[in-house]
Amino acid sequence: MSKTAELQAAIRDVADFPKPGIIFKDITPILSDGKLFRQAIDLLCETAGDRKIDKVVGIDARGFIFAAAVADRLGAGFIPVRKKGKLPWKTHQAAYSLEYGEAVIELHEDAIKPGETVLLVDDLLATGGTAAAAVSLLEKLDADLVGISFLIELTFLHGRDNLSQHPIHSILSY
Amino acid sequence: MSKTAELQAAIRDVADFPKPGIIFKDITPILSDGKLFRQAIDLLCETAGDRKIDKVVGIDARGFIFAAAVADRLGAGFIPVRKKGKLPWKTHQAAYSLEYGEAVIELHEDAIKPGETVLLVDDLLATGGTAAAAVSLLEKLDADLVGISFLIELTFLHGRDNLSQHPIHSILSY
Repeated sequence: MSKTAELQAAIRDVADFPKPGIIFKDITPILSDGKLFRQAIDLLCETAGDRKIDKVVGIDARGFIFAAAVADRLGAGFIPVRKKGKLPWKTHQAAYSLEYGEAVIELHEDAIKPGETVLLVDDLLATGGTAAAAVSLLEKLDADLVGISFLIELTFLHGRDNLSQHPIHSILSY
Repeated sequence: MSKTAELQAAIRDVADFPKPGIIFKDITPILSDGKLFRQAIDLLCETAGDRKIDKVVGIDARGFIFAAAVADRLGAGFIPVRKKGKLPWKTHQAAYSLEYGEAVIELHEDAIKPGETVLLVDDLLATGGTAAAAVSLLEKLDADLVGISFLIELTFLHGRDNLSQHPIHSILSY
């Protein structure tokens, strides 16, 4: 079995989470298996290609898991994008739409220097709203966004269309 | 300068966060520097000593950053302890006290097999309430808790007293 097929086989479908009618892709069986977790990090690191990455950006909270391990592997800094009110220093903010209402994410103003190369890593590309908001924050800091890498992409939600200015990589697609 | 002194020098004190009178230890300058982030992960990995670690447990959300990188380094599985309502599968729950009211954290029932060796990694030991709740969840699964490792310990809050049954390591102390 290929590395990606092994990862795909481990994902657990959970019906009606977080609400009725949704089938949730539970990635904890990948995380909890040391070999599979390393394979996932291997594949995410490969998405950086030959570029030297200065900063790996992760989105609160599941995105932290993958982005932190990728940052450590690449010798890059780790930058958290967090839900509103969690970062202690001066921040830039960006809002994105939820099914009902909106949410706000933040990035420290001094997180990235202009021109630093950045890889944005997250667990899941669904509608792309969160990732697009994160990208807008990175653009405010004049980051050189090398790519956006997801473990899972739900292609039927067309999240890529919200991120079309940047190279997008996904390890597993549904 | 020693590795720990370099880390300590990078931490930024933020006054009145998250509320008036609190001086918050901002660790993002460690995270965002690839060399310092790796040093922090080096030191956390060393706390495992010679024991083979099956699972590294991280606590939502800042704890994920360190625990995930440590799990990847050690070749262990990564297990998330999450705030209530975030984990999709069957969970055990534990409550802990906040200044006003209480909070609940959860752990998947199938996260750890009885007797598996576990290292609990978190960013900060303050009163120890969250960590003690996480330990109670690990005990429900009959995990072999090898140690509890923190990047920062606020010794004046005596959080160790809540975790006295297990070896505790902290990289930086205040």
